[in-house]
Amino acid sequence: MRLWSMNLVIALIGTGLLLSGCHPSPETKTISETHSDPLPSWNDGPTKRSITDFVKRVTKEGGPDFVPQADRVATFDNDGTLWVEQPIYAEAIFINDRIEQLAADHPEWKKKQPYAAVLDHDMKALAADGQKGAVQLLMVTHTGMTVEAFDKTVSEWIEGAQHPRFHRPFTQCIYQPMVEVLTYLRQNGFKTYIVSGGEQEFMRPWTEKAYGIPREQVIGSQIKTELKDGALMRLAQVDSIDDGPGKPVNIGKFIGKRPIAAFGNSDGDQQMLEYTTAGSGARLAVLVHHTDPQREYSYDRESKVGTLNKALDEALQKHWVVIDMKSDWKQVFPPVTNGRAPQP
Amino acid sequence: MRLWSMNLVIALIGTGLLLSGCHPSPETKTISETHSDPLPSWNDGPTKRSITDFVKRVTKEGGPDFVPQADRVATFDNDGTLWVEQPIYAEAIFINDRIEQLAADHPEWKKKQPYAAVLDHDMKALAADGQKGAVQLLMVTHTGMTVEAFDKTVSEWIEGAQHPRFHRPFTQCIYQPMVEVLTYLRQNGFKTYIVSGGEQEFMRPWTEKAYGIPREQVIGSQIKTELKDGALMRLAQVDSIDDGPGKPVNIGKFIGKRPIAAFGNSDGDQQMLEYTTAGSGARLAVLVHHTDPQREYSYDRESKVGTLNKALDEALQKHWVVIDMKSDWKQVFPPVTNGRAPQP
Repeated sequence: MRLWSMNLVIALIGTGLLLSGCHPSPETKTISETHSDPLPSWNDGPTKRSITDFVKRVTKEGGPDFVPQADRVATFDNDGTLWVEQPIYAEAIFINDRIEQLAADHPEWKKKQPYAAVLDHDMKALAADGQKGAVQLLMVTHTGMTVEAFDKTVSEWIEGAQHPRFHRPFTQCIYQPMVEVLTYLRQNGFKTYIVSGGEQEFMRPWTEKAYGIPREQVIGSQIKTELKDGALMRLAQVDSIDDGPGKPVNIGKFIGKRPIAAFGNSDGDQQMLEYTTAGSGARLAVLVHHTDPQREYSYDRESKVGTLNKALDEALQKHWVVIDMKSDWKQVFPPVTNGRAPQP
Repeated sequence: MRLWSMNLVIALIGTGLLLSGCHPSPETKTISETHSDPLPSWNDGPTKRSITDFVKRVTKEGGPDFVPQADRVATFDNDGTLWVEQPIYAEAIFINDRIEQLAADHPEWKKKQPYAAVLDHDMKALAADGQKGAVQLLMVTHTGMTVEAFDKTVSEWIEGAQHPRFHRPFTQCIYQPMVEVLTYLRQNGFKTYIVSGGEQEFMRPWTEKAYGIPREQVIGSQIKTELKDGALMRLAQVDSIDDGPGKPVNIGKFIGKRPIAAFGNSDGDQQMLEYTTAGSGARLAVLVHHTDPQREYSYDRESKVGTLNKALDEALQKHWVVIDMKSDWKQVFPPVTNGRAPQP
């Protein structure tokens, strides 16, 4: 995803506000898991097989494609790959909600852009305010506090916020089939990482619970910090943008190993998949193609969120695995149990 | 350590060249390991006990100081904490050796500073060339190639290079008692990280073999990279300096958790130890104090390499653990077996 296309995000913050909860379709089926099928939410077929075959090949000791455990690195985009990114990124909804919350302490915002536009749900004014205003909204909601304080803010928000269409917490708008892939890979000695355009500390508070991915394996776009009185203060400066070519750069910096498997869903993931497949030996590059307007969404080349255009061409040309959400996935979301999705 | 005090490094590159192998003292004793003693190279006493007591407290389920496994993060400086940094950082010797190697393709260097100074072993000229020249030497030896190519260069160098005094490979100039601490912590569910001022990719090729620390747990000063033809090119730009306050900043960025234990040896580690101990619950802050001129070196407040002055004051005031190398360590280096130190 491209969080940092700020003009877009800003327009979408407005769009999100206007959306009401049409088409709620919570999945309540129980998954029937068997010991023999590590991916029970996947329909049998070439897509599922391409994943299981790859894992079997790289874990077969003595086989021609064997990869030592230390080198079994798999990277996953987040928005649109592990959880829903439509009709707007969860982080944009967070920004909107925080502006509304913080407005109580900022009476001047009622007459000051870009805040007034957010508070008035005035999409046009928001768009008119442009990139500078968008960055202001990001900074005022994401910085000027310690990492710990921001963590607490995000944790509280994600406990309460709901997806506008599915009326369930965002952490239950994760893709059950992908959670199964994460678990399956880890059971086979892989280390699983998130490599997302979303802001790193916006993800770290909840990825362990949602995906079983610990904080230190979450790479995202980064805000600069500085040490102050024994804590890390978040400054109003972008440190690194983890999107497009920024993904391989951050993979090199944080992991120091070339992944052997990478999963994405948009043009922002193209370079990560290229970087992954440019290594020698068995490689797996996978795109989630959103083809399911009933259960989730249908979008690719023309979408402003999660544009999948050039990467789709390359995938077709290079025979990367393209998941057809509608036909490949038995179910999209985890079943709701006592109002909570089961933990991975 | 402060690799990035370039004036200093440059002076030291010269110094290193002038040093000959006086006082060789390889340790050849066999360690007698018992199941009951995880730290056999440590003399019994309060220093050793402060480490084992801490580990017992944080791992005792139901105890008041219990820390869940996921939060057992321990960070280690490298130069002077895990391996020898005197009489000069290994990385400075690498720079020197590379300049000599590369000179064959650069006949013009014979008359061009700062290269001529290195080739002539002319310390004064080197110092006179100052910071700019030092950065030039760093960049010409560390950048302009892919991460993979640099990895290969470092790997080859470290296989062949020897410490000027101890006449053994640098990877055998590691501190056996600290290797035991690393292993002991990992056996108790800790994740061990290097957080060093040294350049990150200079360390990653050999830390797994020397310390059992995989590449993704090595944080250092960083060179910017860019994606080019499916590989990461190392650019002649510094990305982040992992020293002093930069250590907690990078710990936040890479790990996203506050360590509960940190080990250092110089003023460059002071903020890492402060950041570690500023968290709530049981904390362990340790300084290696070099007090052993016979078996290793003796230096602290006045040393230009690994200055330990302000951090020593704070350690004494706050009762951080200060290792007295001479009296606390039974042996300093790993025993040499078939010309190789045993792996951790």
